[in-house]
Amino acid sequence: MGPGPSDVNPRVLRSMSTPLVGHLDPSFVEIMDEVQELLRYVFQTDNQWTLPVSGTGSAAMEACIGNLVEPGDSVLLRTEGYWGDRMAEMARRAGGTVVSLPTAANDPVGMAEYERAFAEAEIDVVGICHADTTTGIRQPNVGEMTDVAHDHGAYVIADCVTSLGGVPVHVDDWGVDAAYSAAQKCLSAPPGASPLTISDRGMAKVLDRDEDVRSWYLDLSLLEGYWGDERAYHHTAPITNTYALREALRVAAEEGIEARWDRHARVSERLVEGLADLGLSMNPPEGLALPSLNAVRVPDGVDDGAVIDHLREAYDIEVAAGLGGLSGEIWRIGTMGYSARDKNVAYLLDAMADALAAEGYEQTTATTPA
Amino acid sequence: MGPGPSDVNPRVLRSMSTPLVGHLDPSFVEIMDEVQELLRYVFQTDNQWTLPVSGTGSAAMEACIGNLVEPGDSVLLRTEGYWGDRMAEMARRAGGTVVSLPTAANDPVGMAEYERAFAEAEIDVVGICHADTTTGIRQPNVGEMTDVAHDHGAYVIADCVTSLGGVPVHVDDWGVDAAYSAAQKCLSAPPGASPLTISDRGMAKVLDRDEDVRSWYLDLSLLEGYWGDERAYHHTAPITNTYALREALRVAAEEGIEARWDRHARVSERLVEGLADLGLSMNPPEGLALPSLNAVRVPDGVDDGAVIDHLREAYDIEVAAGLGGLSGEIWRIGTMGYSARDKNVAYLLDAMADALAAEGYEQTTATTPA
Repeated sequence: MGPGPSDVNPRVLRSMSTPLVGHLDPSFVEIMDEVQELLRYVFQTDNQWTLPVSGTGSAAMEACIGNLVEPGDSVLLRTEGYWGDRMAEMARRAGGTVVSLPTAANDPVGMAEYERAFAEAEIDVVGICHADTTTGIRQPNVGEMTDVAHDHGAYVIADCVTSLGGVPVHVDDWGVDAAYSAAQKCLSAPPGASPLTISDRGMAKVLDRDEDVRSWYLDLSLLEGYWGDERAYHHTAPITNTYALREALRVAAEEGIEARWDRHARVSERLVEGLADLGLSMNPPEGLALPSLNAVRVPDGVDDGAVIDHLREAYDIEVAAGLGGLSGEIWRIGTMGYSARDKNVAYLLDAMADALAAEGYEQTTATTPA
Repeated sequence: MGPGPSDVNPRVLRSMSTPLVGHLDPSFVEIMDEVQELLRYVFQTDNQWTLPVSGTGSAAMEACIGNLVEPGDSVLLRTEGYWGDRMAEMARRAGGTVVSLPTAANDPVGMAEYERAFAEAEIDVVGICHADTTTGIRQPNVGEMTDVAHDHGAYVIADCVTSLGGVPVHVDDWGVDAAYSAAQKCLSAPPGASPLTISDRGMAKVLDRDEDVRSWYLDLSLLEGYWGDERAYHHTAPITNTYALREALRVAAEEGIEARWDRHARVSERLVEGLADLGLSMNPPEGLALPSLNAVRVPDGVDDGAVIDHLREAYDIEVAAGLGGLSGEIWRIGTMGYSARDKNVAYLLDAMADALAAEGYEQTTATTPA
């Protein structure tokens, strides 16, 4: 129940024992087709260029940035925090110039600051974090932000790492030019093959580049040959991860994407209520908390690491500490995919009460003595 | 029995059903230690910086090139053929200038041409293909080539994709500065986590770069934090692939690396003899054929694709066609890792005789009628 990997559905684990076929075998090509079609469903898009990148989530992130950002492009990003650092670092290495979007660490991007950034500078590419794994905050208006970017001729990349498959993602309705995710969050597959989708408009920019993408491995204009109609060899795909992703996507499709979003919302609500009963409060502002990644404030005087160790050692539960500026400030509790279940929440709440008691924490909410 | 993926040992397939733990979990850190130690064994090296790259073999290739090649470096490569094309493309995208090493397509690099290249130009980095998956040729003198490069202050990258775990590789004895491989060849694990090793001298060049590596995902100076003593989060590792690679490396260590090399040599010899009985000859020059990837000449008048289809449809056997300039000229038959077994060879030879007969091929070697 950390920020990923989530528990993998046993059906998905079993799919990984399937003997391997070649990455150019006709039977594997059928699997590729199915994975692409199912990815379009969870992304809610008709984008032709929808495929798994051969690496973990950061590889999909770098594929989006490295392809859409050309040397000299200016890239608008919130740069504070862990996500912003990484995105800025990748944009810079792609030859882009980063324009910082001023935002308080614990808030989503505000529209006033966002529109001001476009008024003040020529922007070519915008990075939006739909679901921030480090803060537990959801950006609620990706579509509106995309409209502003498009009015200025810019391209939008959306980070859906901690939302895809658990929190509503609407690639076509939002109009974003590219979006990426990871397998080990709300899709509950092992990391190693990571969803990416890019619009025709986005792909046109990639195919029209003056200078080649700086990574051969992640160059979408070359991957087009393998994942497009031609099925030409580019590199060996991570075959077993593709089996696993297919099975995980089938599980999601059987449940239905809306039902899956509802389940995540309901399970997270139950967790947040239980944590409140223990006297704990959430990190994100009201109404902006991700249902997949619950960022909880560490109460004063409690050692976050001791609670994490206690949960792992006494209960076999994994939750994560805060990263960067939020180190020591929050715990990050995942309710993602197969892990988003009532029984996990009940078990975690009992364990958390025990871990807090072991740390000498006295909850501020009155309880009736047993 | 294509050029990879090879058949995965059932022990390795089973290991992939292991439930996931976090990539920073203490139990996973122990697995990382074990994988690194076992990789050192198969690479025959004491290099501290020995780790699996989070991607397939081409990602490990790009990690070596992208880290060791700095903008302005000149990179000596044979550029004809499939391997050379890819290596040159990556070197160019890393900002390097490619110096072509003239070599006939079906020969290893000759020492005279190699030494002449150093006399004629300042060389910073050299790429050597120890085992060429496209031609089936083994470069027999990697150590000698490395000595020459070091005499000129250059750094050497060795491609061991189709040799590691099946054909003798001696990273420390050869003195190469970096070597990489893939999981799905002679190690018989699924692709997705790919062996890489880099010497202290090589790593010193990486850490001393003026300009950052162009890929954040593959930057070894950042991966150092995760795979080194610090175990700091960089990106999510492909956890299940790491389980699989560990199990595959354990299988290799139990067999013993020398015994494994001997098995590959013996099984390939049996295959080559059987193919000769069918009147077929090998592509590589005498003594330079890889025991892991057997490149066989397609006889005149035989349609290579029809034989490949027949083997797959009637026998469930996968062999591969030639790539690039060798398209239509050769078949590529893998005897790698778990696939390097006598029973596979016997089955393939029977199937090949049938497939050739179906194509109307009459073998030139006399046989006794039944």
